[in-house]
Amino acid sequence: MSSSDTWHYENFERAGSAIGYRITRKLDEVQSPFQKIEIFESTDWGNLMLIDGAMMLTTRDNFLYHEMMSHPALFTHAAPKNVVIIGGGDCGTLREVLKHPGVEEAVQCDIDEQVTRMAEKWFPELCERNGDARAQLLFDDGIAYMANRAPGSVDIIIVDSTDPVGPAEGLFNKAFYESCFRALKDDGILVQQSESPLVLLDLIKEMRGEMGKAGFARFQTLPFPQPCYPTGWWSCTLARKSGGFDFRDADARGKGFDTLYYSADIHRGAQTLPPFVAAALGEG
Amino acid sequence: MSSSDTWHYENFERAGSAIGYRITRKLDEVQSPFQKIEIFESTDWGNLMLIDGAMMLTTRDNFLYHEMMSHPALFTHAAPKNVVIIGGGDCGTLREVLKHPGVEEAVQCDIDEQVTRMAEKWFPELCERNGDARAQLLFDDGIAYMANRAPGSVDIIIVDSTDPVGPAEGLFNKAFYESCFRALKDDGILVQQSESPLVLLDLIKEMRGEMGKAGFARFQTLPFPQPCYPTGWWSCTLARKSGGFDFRDADARGKGFDTLYYSADIHRGAQTLPPFVAAALGEG
Repeated sequence: MSSSDTWHYENFERAGSAIGYRITRKLDEVQSPFQKIEIFESTDWGNLMLIDGAMMLTTRDNFLYHEMMSHPALFTHAAPKNVVIIGGGDCGTLREVLKHPGVEEAVQCDIDEQVTRMAEKWFPELCERNGDARAQLLFDDGIAYMANRAPGSVDIIIVDSTDPVGPAEGLFNKAFYESCFRALKDDGILVQQSESPLVLLDLIKEMRGEMGKAGFARFQTLPFPQPCYPTGWWSCTLARKSGGFDFRDADARGKGFDTLYYSADIHRGAQTLPPFVAAALGEG
Repeated sequence: MSSSDTWHYENFERAGSAIGYRITRKLDEVQSPFQKIEIFESTDWGNLMLIDGAMMLTTRDNFLYHEMMSHPALFTHAAPKNVVIIGGGDCGTLREVLKHPGVEEAVQCDIDEQVTRMAEKWFPELCERNGDARAQLLFDDGIAYMANRAPGSVDIIIVDSTDPVGPAEGLFNKAFYESCFRALKDDGILVQQSESPLVLLDLIKEMRGEMGKAGFARFQTLPFPQPCYPTGWWSCTLARKSGGFDFRDADARGKGFDTLYYSADIHRGAQTLPPFVAAALGEG
């Protein structure tokens, strides 16, 4: 802390709330063809990445999101081999996916190469598995990628996107989910980051509705803490063509790799929605 | 939303982060002998109560905190009859405690009567059980109250206090916990709000240390979401002289009163700490 510290606030218009950080300096900035990416250094949260002014991740708390976007789905699938990440340019989700030794192919398709270049520079720990022979980093349109992917060729699709505005808007509708449905094998799982279970329940319902129109039949929303996103309480939603959400408990317990937030018991705990969320989603 | 809306931010110096709300107007303000209490109206969160500039509660999300400060402890105790709340002047915890039909006495001892007067005016739903014959509202020093309370006369003590600075500082040390230890029956439970499990782990450890010096032998920290507090992720810590934290599962399932966040399954889920918290607390 020094006298030059300033506070950076992000106002969430839809939520009527804001989150801020104490900043020491701006480390980097780039205007890509798609968006403006800024990196700040903070006093307590390590580095921060903002895209078009919206907080994407901090060094300190990104493990919550990245672990919950990957491990619940991978331990729910019986034997995930082919994984596709749409978005996820910071490579944090990719890193978690590659911790699973059974994964044979992990494609990360983010439209903006500059996100990955900035992550390599300022969040190198998230990129430590980018050289893994199973990893494929594409910088391309995720909507087109899913539309062109061979039918029945994917076990898990993780939509690790920004909010449903701007470049990511097309990742939250029936047309995109239909491509995902077609690309997934019968026992495949789609995972989508699904915003705050407190203030954005309507969005979760709408998203499940679009997934349903695309053919998905079973849904599971898992809440988790995520301090750098609106309200500090976030969720991901899993969707399947059929089957349930029992996970490989013994494998999750003996996973053989470290996690900071995820565990079999945390996974089980997240499967229970608070009564007000369950009621809103018609699971009460 | 209108052009006169403004954003009110609260900087958390210890955490290096901030939370803000979109405000329409200030509804009320009083300077009590102890602190300044302000009430704001917000666009999305109902009314807000701030004490000396620190966010205490919002209409929209206080149920998370109040339910988790009360029901886990009350369902862990075999048959709680005598409950004492230290602080808690907004009466939200008292309301939850009185939902338990077995409770015969619920004393709320807050040093500042103005907090309760403001709650009656701006958060009347939290005060709806203040007229209950079992409720006793004292406006007095909680430290003195616990020191003078008859030994072995209390089943559950809930320390529903502000942060350990200013008037509440004396509620986080060995001397106060010794009074609580003496006042509790052998199977009694002390509950203390215990700050953020992400950024204030040191405080949780220190608090458990002080409780331990006072004689408490068993501890359980339960995390829960709480958007209006630093990081949006909060916790309470239960302490016992002996015995464990198995709770009355069947009673919690058939509780016969409504809750928005608490349920037997949420209770069970909260009993599992994320690996990084468990490791920090020596429970890994």
